[in-house]
Order: sequence, then structure tokens, then C-alpha cells
Amino acid sequence: MSATRYAYLGPEGTFTEVALRTLPEAATRELVPMVSVPAALDAVRSGAAAAALVPIENSVEGGITATLDELTTGEPLMIYREVLLSITFALLVRPGTELSDVKTVTAHPAAQPQVRNWMAAHLPEAVWESAASNADGARLVQEGRYDAAFAGEFAAATYGLEPLVTEIHDAENAQTRFVLVGRPARPAAPTGADKTSVVIWLGDDHPGALLELLQEFMVRGVNLMLIQSRPTGAGIGNYCFAVDAEGHIADRRVGEALMGLKRICPKVRFLGSYPRAGVTPEDVRPLRAGTSDTDFTDASDWLARNQDGRA
Amino acid sequence: MSATRYAYLGPEGTFTEVALRTLPEAATRELVPMVSVPAALDAVRSGAAAAALVPIENSVEGGITATLDELTTGEPLMIYREVLLSITFALLVRPGTELSDVKTVTAHPAAQPQVRNWMAAHLPEAVWESAASNADGARLVQEGRYDAAFAGEFAAATYGLEPLVTEIHDAENAQTRFVLVGRPARPAAPTGADKTSVVIWLGDDHPGALLELLQEFMVRGVNLMLIQSRPTGAGIGNYCFAVDAEGHIADRRVGEALMGLKRICPKVRFLGSYPRAGVTPEDVRPLRAGTSDTDFTDASDWLARNQDGRA
Amino acid sequence: MSATRYAYLGPEGTFTEVALRTLPEAATRELVPMVSVPAALDAVRSGAAAAALVPIENSVEGGITATLDELTTGEPLMIYREVLLSITFALLVRPGTELSDVKTVTAHPAAQPQVRNWMAAHLPEAVWESAASNADGARLVQEGRYDAAFAGEFAAATYGLEPLVTEIHDAENAQTRFVLVGRPARPAAPTGADKTSVVIWLGDDHPGALLELLQEFMVRGVNLMLIQSRPTGAGIGNYCFAVDAEGHIADRRVGEALMGLKRICPKVRFLGSYPRAGVTPEDVRPLRAGTSDTDFTDASDWLARNQDGRA
Amino acid sequence: MSATRYAYLGPEGTFTEVALRTLPEAATRELVPMVSVPAALDAVRSGAAAAALVPIENSVEGGITATLDELTTGEPLMIYREVLLSITFALLVRPGTELSDVKTVTAHPAAQPQVRNWMAAHLPEAVWESAASNADGARLVQEGRYDAAFAGEFAAATYGLEPLVTEIHDAENAQTRFVLVGRPARPAAPTGADKTSVVIWLGDDHPGALLELLQEFMVRGVNLMLIQSRPTGAGIGNYCFAVDAEGHIADRRVGEALMGLKRICPKVRFLGSYPRAGVTPEDVRPLRAGTSDTDFTDASDWLARNQDGRA
Repeated sequence: MSATRYAYLGPEGTFTEVALRTLPEAATRELVPMVSVPAALDAVRSGAAAAALVPIENSVEGGITATLDELTTGEPLMIYREVLLSITFALLVRPGTELSDVKTVTAHPAAQPQVRNWMAAHLPEAVWESAASNADGARLVQEGRYDAAFAGEFAAATYGLEPLVTEIHDAENAQTRFVLVGRPARPAAPTGADKTSVVIWLGDDHPGALLELLQEFMVRGVNLMLIQSRPTGAGIGNYCFAVDAEGHIADRRVGEALMGLKRICPKVRFLGSYPRAGVTPEDVRPLRAGTSDTDFTDASDWLARNQDGRA
Repeated sequence: MSATRYAYLGPEGTFTEVALRTLPEAATRELVPMVSVPAALDAVRSGAAAAALVPIENSVEGGITATLDELTTGEPLMIYREVLLSITFALLVRPGTELSDVKTVTAHPAAQPQVRNWMAAHLPEAVWESAASNADGARLVQEGRYDAAFAGEFAAATYGLEPLVTEIHDAENAQTRFVLVGRPARPAAPTGADKTSVVIWLGDDHPGALLELLQEFMVRGVNLMLIQSRPTGAGIGNYCFAVDAEGHIADRRVGEALMGLKRICPKVRFLGSYPRAGVTPEDVRPLRAGTSDTDFTDASDWLARNQDGRA
Repeated sequence: MSATRYAYLGPEGTFTEVALRTLPEAATRELVPMVSVPAALDAVRSGAAAAALVPIENSVEGGITATLDELTTGEPLMIYREVLLSITFALLVRPGTELSDVKTVTAHPAAQPQVRNWMAAHLPEAVWESAASNADGARLVQEGRYDAAFAGEFAAATYGLEPLVTEIHDAENAQTRFVLVGRPARPAAPTGADKTSVVIWLGDDHPGALLELLQEFMVRGVNLMLIQSRPTGAGIGNYCFAVDAEGHIADRRVGEALMGLKRICPKVRFLGSYPRAGVTPEDVRPLRAGTSDTDFTDASDWLARNQDGRA
Repeated sequence: MSATRYAYLGPEGTFTEVALRTLPEAATRELVPMVSVPAALDAVRSGAAAAALVPIENSVEGGITATLDELTTGEPLMIYREVLLSITFALLVRPGTELSDVKTVTAHPAAQPQVRNWMAAHLPEAVWESAASNADGARLVQEGRYDAAFAGEFAAATYGLEPLVTEIHDAENAQTRFVLVGRPARPAAPTGADKTSVVIWLGDDHPGALLELLQEFMVRGVNLMLIQSRPTGAGIGNYCFAVDAEGHIADRRVGEALMGLKRICPKVRFLGSYPRAGVTPEDVRPLRAGTSDTDFTDASDWLARNQDGRA
């Protein structure tokens, strides 16, 4: 095991590497690119890496299913941090190439929905070919296989290319969310602007089960930020749900909601409580009345007094 | 204070006395009739009596408001037992009186809805006069003031009367429920067929408040047996709710529901957890899956493991 | 039948008469006092009166059970108006009587909780005797049977008495709500500040039934103003619920909620839609988004287009 | 436009073609393979095809996001049929090849999770290369580029290959669901075993919005079979929900639920009501009491009578 090694979804020069380098501790870690999300997470499970940064959600494609499915099954892992990165593309070319010279372009298929409109407007005749990653596409341009690649502007230097056009993106606010994943341990203390991730399996064929799941959160005033269904592998129509909730497992309202889920659902997997990226405690929606830790403690004292006949 | 004195809603010979005598311990107590429900409960508050038996609900008139309001306000009291009594009336007369001789009848006004149809059929011409209690009506017949009184058959002997007709009641299954009330103390241990009584005040002018109150019970699988609104005295439309729930305050699901109410409602008064009359554990509806004490303990252990990173 | 005769809970000089005289049309009607709520409502059912004014709720005692039970059972009746009246008592005496002369007082038992504290402070030695009505108590003072009566100040002239003390009431904002009841007919058009009254029976022994009842209202954004349980007469624990909801049966959201109740409950009785007393449309809480009549019509058009394949 | 032409996700020899041929009308249509889901659906939008069959959900990967996103945005389309197909793979080889000869294998990436365990057990040394489709992989084996391809057994004949191993699948009950999509028109009449698909957008940042969405279905007794979140493209955390509900838009309970959604949600898109594949009316869960068309009609009549004063 190496406490100083962080894996990430490679190769070098991807958005994931950029996201990883926004973490202060990255400066003192050995950053190791891996060929896939499962490979990055397996490096954590095996102890080859202390943690791994992988994409989990993007604003165009939604949840990254490879990451969700890896976290949902297999040996448990835990999320310790999240990183939000705005995604814009540059059109990278060999020095001297002009836009009218570009007949073939390449990039990872996930880039396509984000540059499709731009291509239709500016390169209507160009032929698209998929690459294994955006960084790999840049390498193929360097080798002369294609005329241009869509990739992060930061990748230009690595491959001796120039950004001919920058800030290309179809959806405003295109962002990707990454998570830093490690082996299970005690979560960091609450910061006041936290998020808790869990995966919840529903029982067989109970029509109101999803409603009941949501009520366990709502009755304790815990807001949900994301709910994603994923197939369980047990046949069409069998789903589990990946849920992000506001708050920390150390918050009484969150803890009671999780216990409620644990009691009524066949399986619940806790994926971590960690600080929300880009959000300070001042930004957080006020708690619903009656759901602070103090409210819980007061109610607990009141119950004990009544149970003892001291009300 | 007298640990051996039990007050009850008098006078002697009422249904309340009969209900009280169904309790085994009544044989070894001094039974003291009181003129009203407030007087009986004040005897408990002052220490003049160890406990008081008072009616709280009947199947014709509903909740007995004097009792509910006394338990809701003033110095706290607690319910320790309940007694269910089937209510049927006898027509009591002086020996020798026949039905055709009966021109005037008397009883407490509460008896009237239960004998109205019988009177219309069998004594259409008779004049009704109200008495202060059914037992007092019997005394007035003894004194010759009226020809007949509706009262419990058991009252005949006390007043030298005979039951001319018995088993008179308009509603099938006419029953009255009585409660044995004392000063607050630790409730008796759960029996497996218990009931918990609380009074709950809702916040001002919040349209969904009653729904939220019910959800605190439902989300923990706690069934309600009775919900009665009572005015708070703060003006038209201001109500509190007297609720009877299945289960015991020592049951985890009930305790968590009560804490939930305590957190979201301005005021909650616990009125006691006590065995259900006429119900054995075998009769009780099965718990909803996930709401037994074991389920709560397992979920609590699971939460602690996750909070500690030992999942 | 007499279209010009209005019955009310008598005798003359009661608060009910005062409430009735606040209605403009009362000036042109023959006002007939009746001995009881059932008698007043039976006069409507038989056609002897066009309408009857009866008390239905007071802020000290809660729902007037005689009125609720009469409206719940028997031949259907409908509420057309409501009147709110502030209740304060005067101490009425024969001219020349001083407070120190008052040894006996009388009034209807319902007055007692509203004057109890005042008596304890100002007439601690006086003996209370119940009268059949407050007006009847005043008559008994006129006849010299008692020294003083609690009644409405307006009753003094009728019985040749003087108000020795006025504005007596224990609870601030003590009010009584009265309803004008007639035979069923089309309700008056909505005013923008309306109330709808219904009685709802729940099915046997279904723990979540009350929650489902409330959800039928809440899901359509219909706020409840009052919910009162009343025994159905079918045994302890069998209740129906008298509910007052904001809005008018002609409002789409109210109509859909009532149909929802009709579908899931064994019995629903509509008691009327009528203007709220003392409330103008400006005072009414804003509708929840999506629940106006226009929203319903738009959704209905949208559904029809989709059903026809014209979306 | 061609009413006789059906597009499908090609190339020839895919599972989609097999699914399409299970439809009786396929025998009389010209079946046209398309290179992608968007291309197949655009053929319908442009009128080049009357309908298109595309995969929408599989039991291993979940919702097919390309299909969901195409149906969610752009010019409206409607689902008319669904087809369920069990997915098992065969290992196709050139005649004479034995298992020990297989050093390289290929298939579409979506096949990989379904054959991964089988490969680890039987071909641990073989190298995997991705193909554009399973059929294309078979073609590459025919050309000698790879030793074996995972594909449907039915593809062997097309490419002159033999199935060396059949019935390969990791998850039991691996199935794919396909939908037949056309331009909007009136849905076929209900069969008694129908499904309704909609996409629902939630309002901004309203924590309870998903719960309210579910309640619109639940309060009318409409069961949900699937709920899938999809990003709206408006930034991280902005999702719409693709929902499959039991029943038909012509069913009153479904229609009222859809109108409820339309009123409270910023946008709802109806995707069709169509027969459930592999389910007969006898298999359908019984309706919740009070939610049949007759119950709705009765309630509607009852409301009208009360609105008219004829109750």
C-alpha cells in the first residue's frame, strides 16, 4: 500500500487530472493515471493507491454509470471529497493549421454532445472519428493521423499542439463532478456544508417503496440533491437508487433517516459524508424547524424524562 | 396522601363504580365517589387519592370532554389502566309497578340517546325528566318522585328497586371506556398489547401540520387508534389533538415517533402507556416490517459502524 | 312550509338570537325560538321553517356535538351561512342589587367554564345553580329565585334586570360560531373567501385511512380549517370526521378533492359551501401554485390533446 | 414518407433486428438498419420511416441514455409498442476454430459486462477489442481480423461463422427492452395491461418536488414501474425524470395523475400508452379500491349532484 499514491482516470492531460490537481494535497502525492474507472478503484481496493479521483456525474450525460456501479458493488469504498470542474473544449491543432485545413477531428465520444453544435456551425464538412480519450486524440493529432482534436486547452502543451479555438461548449454551465474515493474510514467532521451519499435497494415489487424511501428523508427535514436509478442486475425493472442528501452522517437528522432506510430497505450502502464543493455553510438552505442536533437532543431528553415518569 | 384510596366519578351505583370494581386491586382499596370528573382528578393531584377512575370515551357520545380537558391542562396526570364496559340499561321501578303504570321516567341526560328508541316503542306517553346521575334517578324513584329510572341493573338492590326490563340499549355494542389516572411515574413494562396516549398542539396556521403529525407516526409504523380534536381556548379554530397510538413508550418505534412530534410541534403532553383492555398480544395487528425493537437496534448498530468507518 | 320563517335555538334573548339578527334578511323573517338544536333542525326538515340558526362550534367547548350529530345523520341538510359572535357575559340583577348581595347565581352550564375564574375572584362564596338556558336563568332572577344570572347584556331589558358587571369572560377571544341551515339546494356562487363542510366516514380498521383522507386535500392544495372526530355509533373507536376546508365546491381543486374522498371512503356527506364570516378575499391565503381553476382547465386541455395525439 | 418502412438500430443481425422481427407487422414492412439511435429516430421525424425500433432499457446497463435523451428533447415522438428480449451471447468463430485457438475476441462494448465472468473462466488469456456493434464484430471475425466474436447466435449464418459456445450471459434474466417509436397520434385503446411513459421536469431547487411528483401518482392508486433521472443540460444537479406507470392515458386514474403533474411541474412530456410486453390483464396487480373508471364516474356524478343541490 502506498499512502502517497493517488490514482486517477487517465491518461495524463485529461480533465480528471486537472480536477485532481485542484486538491491541495495533490501537490505532495504521486499521481498515477489508470486506464479505466474500475482500474482506478481496484488500485484503491488492493492498496496500490491511497485514493482515486474519478468522474461521477456530468451535466450533459448525467451519472457516470461505470463509477456508480463500481461504488455500488464489490468491496466497499468511501467518498472523501468532491471536485466540480467546468468543462470547455479547445480545438487543438498542429502549429500552422488553420480552420479551413481541418478535414478530420477526433476526441472521446463523451465530448461529442458538447461540441456537436459548434461543429455543425464551424466545421460542417469535417469527419469525426472517436478516440480512446481526449488526451489520446491529441496524441493522434501530434502523430498526424487527424487534423484536429477536441480536448482541454491544458493538453496542448503536452502534445506540442496549439489551441486554435477555445471555450467550446454547447450547454452553458457544462460541469463534471469528480469524487475522491478511498477505503472506508471514519468520515471527516461536519463542516456545515456537507453531503451524504448512499445507495439504497428497494424490496421486490412494492409499488409505494420509492415514496417510503423519500419520506424517511423528508420527515426528518433532510433534503435530497440527487437521486439516480441503477439496475441491480436482477432483471428489467429491478433498480437501486444512488442518493445524495444534504448533511453529514454525524448530523442527528441524517443519522435517523439512514437508520429508517436501513430498517425498511433490504440493503443500504453508505458511500460517505464529505464537504460540498463550492458551497460554504452560509450558502446552505436553512434547516427545517425542529431538525437541528439541539432539537434532537432536547426531544431525546424529553422522552427519557417521560419514560422515567419525571415529565 | 392515601395510597389506599381510589376516587371515582360517583355517586355509588354508577357504571363508573362497576368499571372500577373490575380491577383486582379495587378489592383492597377504599373507593371514594366524587361529584364530578374534575373533583375526582383534583383528589389525585392533591394527594387525597392515589388514583381516580373516570370515563374518557363512549361509543355514543364520543370523547368525554371534561376528562380530556382535565388531562390536557393543569398539573400533569398519567393514565395507568383502561377499562371497557358494555353499557346496557335496566328500567328500575318500585316493587309491584308494571309497565303500564309508568308515566314519568328519569336518568342522567347521557342515558337519553341510548334509550330513546326503546322509549318511543314501549313508553311513548311517558314524560322524561333529567336527573343528576343515573344513581340519583334511582334514589328519586325510591322516594316516589318518579315512576321509573333508567340505570344499570346493579343499582336496583342499592335503592330497593326491581329491574322491570333489562338489556335496554339503542346502539349495538354500546360501550364506555374508563381510565385509571394517577400522578406521573414510570409506566408499567410493555405487555405486548399496549396503548400510548398523548396530547399534541399544532403550530399556528400551518395548513399541513396535521398531516405532518400523522406522518411522524406512520413513517415508524405506529398505528393510531383514536384522534380527537379539542379547542385550546385560544379562539375559534385553535385545536389540540388527543391521540391514542398502538404500542408503548418503551417501544423504540413509539419513542422515535414521540420525539419526532416533540421536535415539530410546539407542545406535546405524554398521558401514559398502559395495557389495552380486552386485547391480548395475540390479537394485536402484526408490526410493519422493519419496526420491531430488534430492527431499531440493528439499524442503530449499523449507523454506528458507518459513523466509525467500520462498515 | 314557510319561506319567511327562520327557526333558532331559543329561548328569546339568547346569543343565538343575537347572532341571527346580524343577518340582513333576518329583518324580514319571522324568527321562531325552538327548545333545542334537534327541534330547530327538524323544523327545517319538516318545512315548518325555511332555515334555522344553530351554534356549531365555540372556542371554549369545541364542536357542538348536538349540532354536528344532527347534520351527520338523518335527512340531509345544508349550511348556507356562518356567523361568528364574540361571547361576553354580563351579571344581571334586579335593580338595586349590589355585588355583596349576590349569594346565588345561575346560567346555562355551558357558561360556567367562561365565568369560573371571574366568580372565584369576585363571588367566591356564591352558590351556582344551573338553568335550562341563560335566558331562562334571567327569568328566574326576575322571579326572585336567584340573586343574579350570567347572560348576554342584551337580555337585561327583556327581563327587567340591570347589568351589574359586563364584559365577563375567561378566555380572550371567546367566540361562538353559528350556522344557518336549510334543505339542500345549489350553493350560492363562490365569493373568493369560502368554506366547504363535509363529513367523512373512514373504512374499518385501516390504520392509514386518516392520512389518506388528508392527502386527498393536500395533493390538490386545499387547506383544512377544522377536523373534528365524532363517534359513528358502531362501537368504541369508530369515528367519522367533520371537516371544514378552504374553498368552494365549485372550485376545481375542491371538487377533485371531494371526488377523491368519495372514491376511497365508504361515505361522504357534503354539508355546504358558504362565505367565511369576517374574511374577505384579500385575507385568504394565496393558492398553492398549480391549483387555480385556470391551472385545472389548462391541464385538462393538455390531457385531451395528448389523448387525441395532438400534443 | 413511407408507411411501409420501419427503421431500427442496425446493422443487420443485431438483437434489435431480432426484437423487431417478433412484431407480426414486421413481416410486411421494409426493415431499414440505421447507424445509431438518433439516426433511427430522425428517420421517423423526417417521415423517411413510419416507425423505429430502438433499445430503451437493459437489465445490466439500465436506461439507454441515447434513447431516453432523444425522446425527451427535440420534436415529440411517441411509443406504440414494447418488446422484451432475453439476451444471451454465442461465441462465434470461423468453422474449425477451437476454444484453445482463440487469442483475440471482439464485440460491442455493451456486451462486455455480460460476458466478463465467462471470459475470466474460459478465455483468461484472450485479448478484448471493441467493435462498433456485435454484428460488425462478427464481420471482422469473418475477415480474419479476430479469432472470435460475442454476438447473438442468429448472427452466425449471416457471416458464415459457427457458434462455438452458446447461452453465455453473466446475469440471470439478462433482458433488453425495445420500443417502437412513431410520430404522435391517438394511442391504441387500452388492453387492460398497459403502460404509460412520461418525462417530468421538476421546478428549481424545491427539495420536496420529487416526493410531490410521486404523490400525484400514489394518491390515485397508479403504480410506478420505472423512474429514471436524466440531466436536463442546465447544470450539475438539474434532472428530469422518465417514468413508466401502470395503466393507460385513457384510464381515469392515469389521466387525473397526469393532469396533477401538469399543474405542479414546469413541463411534462407524454411519451405514449401501450401494451406491456409479456403481460396479460390477468397478470396485472389488482387496482387499489376506488380507482377504477367506474369509481371515477360515480364520484363525478356524486359531485355534480351536490353542486346542483340534488344530493
